[in-house]
Amino acid sequence: MSRTAASNPILVEVRRGTVVESRHAGAIAVADAEGKLLLALGDVQQPIFPRSAVKTMQAIPLVESGAADAFGLNDRELAVACSSHSGDRVHLEAVKDLLAKAGLDESYLACGAHWPVSDRAMRELIEARRTPCPIHNNCSGKHAGMLAACAQLGFEPRGYERADHPLQVMIARIISETCAVALARDGMAIDGCSVPTWSLPLSALATGFARLGTGRGLPTARARSARRLLDACFAEPVLVAGEGRFDTIAMRALAPELFVKGGAEGVHCAALPNLGLGIALKIDDGAKRGTERALAELIAALLPKARGALAEQLDGEVLNWRGIKVGQVVAAPALLEAIAALDVERPALVKGARS
Amino acid sequence: MSRTAASNPILVEVRRGTVVESRHAGAIAVADAEGKLLLALGDVQQPIFPRSAVKTMQAIPLVESGAADAFGLNDRELAVACSSHSGDRVHLEAVKDLLAKAGLDESYLACGAHWPVSDRAMRELIEARRTPCPIHNNCSGKHAGMLAACAQLGFEPRGYERADHPLQVMIARIISETCAVALARDGMAIDGCSVPTWSLPLSALATGFARLGTGRGLPTARARSARRLLDACFAEPVLVAGEGRFDTIAMRALAPELFVKGGAEGVHCAALPNLGLGIALKIDDGAKRGTERALAELIAALLPKARGALAEQLDGEVLNWRGIKVGQVVAAPALLEAIAALDVERPALVKGARS
Repeated sequence: MSRTAASNPILVEVRRGTVVESRHAGAIAVADAEGKLLLALGDVQQPIFPRSAVKTMQAIPLVESGAADAFGLNDRELAVACSSHSGDRVHLEAVKDLLAKAGLDESYLACGAHWPVSDRAMRELIEARRTPCPIHNNCSGKHAGMLAACAQLGFEPRGYERADHPLQVMIARIISETCAVALARDGMAIDGCSVPTWSLPLSALATGFARLGTGRGLPTARARSARRLLDACFAEPVLVAGEGRFDTIAMRALAPELFVKGGAEGVHCAALPNLGLGIALKIDDGAKRGTERALAELIAALLPKARGALAEQLDGEVLNWRGIKVGQVVAAPALLEAIAALDVERPALVKGARS
Repeated sequence: MSRTAASNPILVEVRRGTVVESRHAGAIAVADAEGKLLLALGDVQQPIFPRSAVKTMQAIPLVESGAADAFGLNDRELAVACSSHSGDRVHLEAVKDLLAKAGLDESYLACGAHWPVSDRAMRELIEARRTPCPIHNNCSGKHAGMLAACAQLGFEPRGYERADHPLQVMIARIISETCAVALARDGMAIDGCSVPTWSLPLSALATGFARLGTGRGLPTARARSARRLLDACFAEPVLVAGEGRFDTIAMRALAPELFVKGGAEGVHCAALPNLGLGIALKIDDGAKRGTERALAELIAALLPKARGALAEQLDGEVLNWRGIKVGQVVAAPALLEAIAALDVERPALVKGARS
């Protein structure tokens, strides 16, 4: 699986003064639910790890199994099951509630611990002379959702994170079916939170997000499960990430026209249900500043009102430690040209999509 | 100054399982003091910002002006003037001592504030319910050194950070002379700590480090100043960076055969005095994990005993939140091939170099 250097185009430049100081290369796929590519910039066939970008797909069993109904889960608990959360109080409470409703507790979480993403939450822990627990892990909501699905399905909860556990086998099948792609066993690796992550091409991932957003190409029950999860994220965007973070800001302003979810190592995916499109993006070097700047540019081209909602992300101002503007993160020529060539009118409004 | 995408080779790969998940492209120059390139991988003529990698050059006036002698500065104070420090107590004390000996105090520091690089120091501040001050900025030692030079030279200390201040004009001339390259005014930008950073090619930067390390090609007084600064860093490597950090680990094990200094946005420079060589490296995307992995590989090829001292850096193990090994940061084929082609025997031991 070790391929030689993909020569993906530079998508984002970081300028200091008038000089380009750093560069982020990468690839972007925009596809419809039939797998038709409307944009393919860079190598969109090379397998990449979607990491946390597919948490909604990993949460499908939570709804499809009947767990969400049986345990009476609300939008906050469903949204946190799809989240890479900041570890603020609102997130921890939603994770605890989700576990409690399934008759479980934090001791079952196999995600490992890290300091909360939120500065405020981290400071509060330190001030209390405490260290982080698995519930502070940005993936604890996903793990709680997996555990609740196990509880409903009658699966042994211990070991739920292992690739050969029936829940992970089920999730792999869901990802494969949703993205219409076969998953290679030797393309599987272990994620930061210890569950499997399956590599697949950006083209397939974009198709999967077009399907998640529209329900097209999915079995009826799965389409319904996906819609319920997306609706929960649209209703509670702060649960999906946290204050000040890209996904929360974007969905707070643009839902239900945009679903968006980032993952580690420069992956970001989005669904634009009304346009019938899915987006999958990977910055080769894994830098979030590249990912978010490129995605903001693409979203603003597809959803004109995003230009206001994502003004700060599009501006990309770089300030130094005294607050002086010293540079800017900008979309590179290759990205701007690809977006200009994208016929935004062409993806006709999908009939029956929500507005 | 906006050039189109440099297509630099991939120097470092980040594997997860058996799949390459992320990639870092970049360029490396290895030169002698005459400017002869022994290795030029990627575009080593494109101007890059050296950022903190040239702090030793920025500290030359502190010694050359006579300030170091007049104020009786010790190795700790000279090393911290060349540092990107972690903000631990040892660093703050050295900065305070340096300022006090010059008759100044923290209120003169124009570097702005950020949380200490050191986790321990950050936790201590938070536990004390404090916020960071300019002295915690990783550049505060450099700024203290600049202020002490101003005090000795009779320059007005207020405004010492501005490009048109006589100290910054002097530093620009020193960088230009040391690296044997003209500095273009439109290639200047403002650094994170508010002083100017001047873009210059990696080839020139490598030459400059070969000269710093050997004294060759420098006026006698400057060669002596450079050696005094390097000797201070060799004597107090923890003052140059901090516990657990690359430059401290490398110099603690390999000084005086290696001087090494990193900068922001993926820049790293080194001098190998006994081999008469300088190294300058820039990862295009600015990622430190790429920079340090590539530099470790190159240093280990040039100084065989570095293979033990930098074993952890060369191993590049990626652990997840439960401590499970999930991947590895490895040198990419292009880097390994360039290093294999480098005739390590060719750069004959420079006569008179320290051993």
